[in-house]
Amino acid sequence: MRRVGIVGLGLVGGSLGLALRRAMPGMEVIGVARRPETAAEALRVAAVSSAGTTLAGLTACDLVVLAAPLAATPGLLSDMAPHLAEGARVTDVGSVKGWVVAAAKDKLDLGRNPFMGGHPMAGREVGGIENADVDLFRERPWVFTPEGGSAVPPVWDDWLEAVAATGARPVLMSPSQHDRQVALVSHVPFLLSAGYLLGAGRSEVWDRARLVASSGFRDISRLGAGDPDMYTAIVEANREEVLKAWTETRAALEELEGRMTGPPGALRDLLDEARRTRHEWELADR
Amino acid sequence: MRRVGIVGLGLVGGSLGLALRRAMPGMEVIGVARRPETAAEALRVAAVSSAGTTLAGLTACDLVVLAAPLAATPGLLSDMAPHLAEGARVTDVGSVKGWVVAAAKDKLDLGRNPFMGGHPMAGREVGGIENADVDLFRERPWVFTPEGGSAVPPVWDDWLEAVAATGARPVLMSPSQHDRQVALVSHVPFLLSAGYLLGAGRSEVWDRARLVASSGFRDISRLGAGDPDMYTAIVEANREEVLKAWTETRAALEELEGRMTGPPGALRDLLDEARRTRHEWELADR
Repeated sequence: MRRVGIVGLGLVGGSLGLALRRAMPGMEVIGVARRPETAAEALRVAAVSSAGTTLAGLTACDLVVLAAPLAATPGLLSDMAPHLAEGARVTDVGSVKGWVVAAAKDKLDLGRNPFMGGHPMAGREVGGIENADVDLFRERPWVFTPEGGSAVPPVWDDWLEAVAATGARPVLMSPSQHDRQVALVSHVPFLLSAGYLLGAGRSEVWDRARLVASSGFRDISRLGAGDPDMYTAIVEANREEVLKAWTETRAALEELEGRMTGPPGALRDLLDEARRTRHEWELADR
Repeated sequence: MRRVGIVGLGLVGGSLGLALRRAMPGMEVIGVARRPETAAEALRVAAVSSAGTTLAGLTACDLVVLAAPLAATPGLLSDMAPHLAEGARVTDVGSVKGWVVAAAKDKLDLGRNPFMGGHPMAGREVGGIENADVDLFRERPWVFTPEGGSAVPPVWDDWLEAVAATGARPVLMSPSQHDRQVALVSHVPFLLSAGYLLGAGRSEVWDRARLVASSGFRDISRLGAGDPDMYTAIVEANREEVLKAWTETRAALEELEGRMTGPPGALRDLLDEARRTRHEWELADR
């Protein structure tokens, strides 16, 4: 794998370019951005070895990573297809996988250009090439969703090695497993955070309360500051699984609410169960 | 103010000792802990200049800071009263103020020993003297709740100076204003975080989802890992205001849920409103 194309040079695309180039100095990274200013900035910070604004630049790539906004995915797959070399592989970094894999089946000739979905579990509340970070993927899961979910065809071995070289930890599952799990641990947390912010901002005491809001507020509201367009596209593309996870969460919130007015021991038991779940995650994370 | 007593040498009491001693090297800080091991550790890390396990050690203090668990507050006020010098002032660091101020009126002779509630808006998901941090209060609001809420009697001037010297930013309000505002920006965020964890841990996909849970999960769940005993006591002591803020939050969550299945533009508008609230906080925080 000598030439990798990255379509979309925002936070994730830019960080990926930086990380690949540090890990594999001999690799050529060809960036494609919508705006010439973005392409120029990616070149300036050396996130890519060459950059432009046209998909024709992908012609010589062995592998193309789609890192543009989720909603733009089907159109970009369609538009890039005629420029791909025979055998060039295509992957992506989108937050929803079933919807993207379906678009790839629709827009690409998979016999000629194999597609495998990908999703690095790394993000920040700020986007753009100006926030690109060579260590964005370090020690973070990077999910791959090959057909069937359990084995990656050998043609992808070099890409898994490249991803591991950025510091990420490759994880395999099917697109539907991914979408169900990520709805629970990423999309619903965003929606809860945004819903909390919405209620807080509308509260009659917000104008004064925001002056004493501190680290607890900062943590609960960080996700809710995310890009409304991006999250609207995620909810659209993963609605069924988001609603399942939302229902699970709402049932727990309602049970907790019932215990707020009961005997203290009953509330304490639920809070203890909640804390154990966080500890399970901390152990799993290591 | 030459001698300050700190009753309770956990995260907040221990950090306060460290911060006061760094800011005011001439001040004597007398610590009282429930367990001798805690008193010894506080001495070892120099969070106090002397330490013991009996409230009789407070006799010579000009001011006493109650930094024990909220639920222990009334009993400790009662027990310390006979040991306080004439004119010695008493304050606290608890997360609820109306309930604490009522306990102080009940347990102290306020003509002899003035009381003013306090609440540093700083915390971590781990407690104990072993996590004490000299910079815990830096750039954080420290709420004071004098009678009336708008002016601190001059007898407290030296304590406000000491608090400012720890790096905290003193803020004044009435106990009821504090409890209403903190319910919104601190107690409800905890309950949402705990409720989210509860639902996630019970989800049929948790065992696998926790392996891909990343920074979004970390942020939404940090508060929910807090001490169940402490938060149970907070909800007990501040139930009415917590339920008000919970109702405001739930209304927003329900509106958001309704938009998840509607046209994308309607969801996007709410997400945009949520993000603006976070930005208002960021501006207010500077």
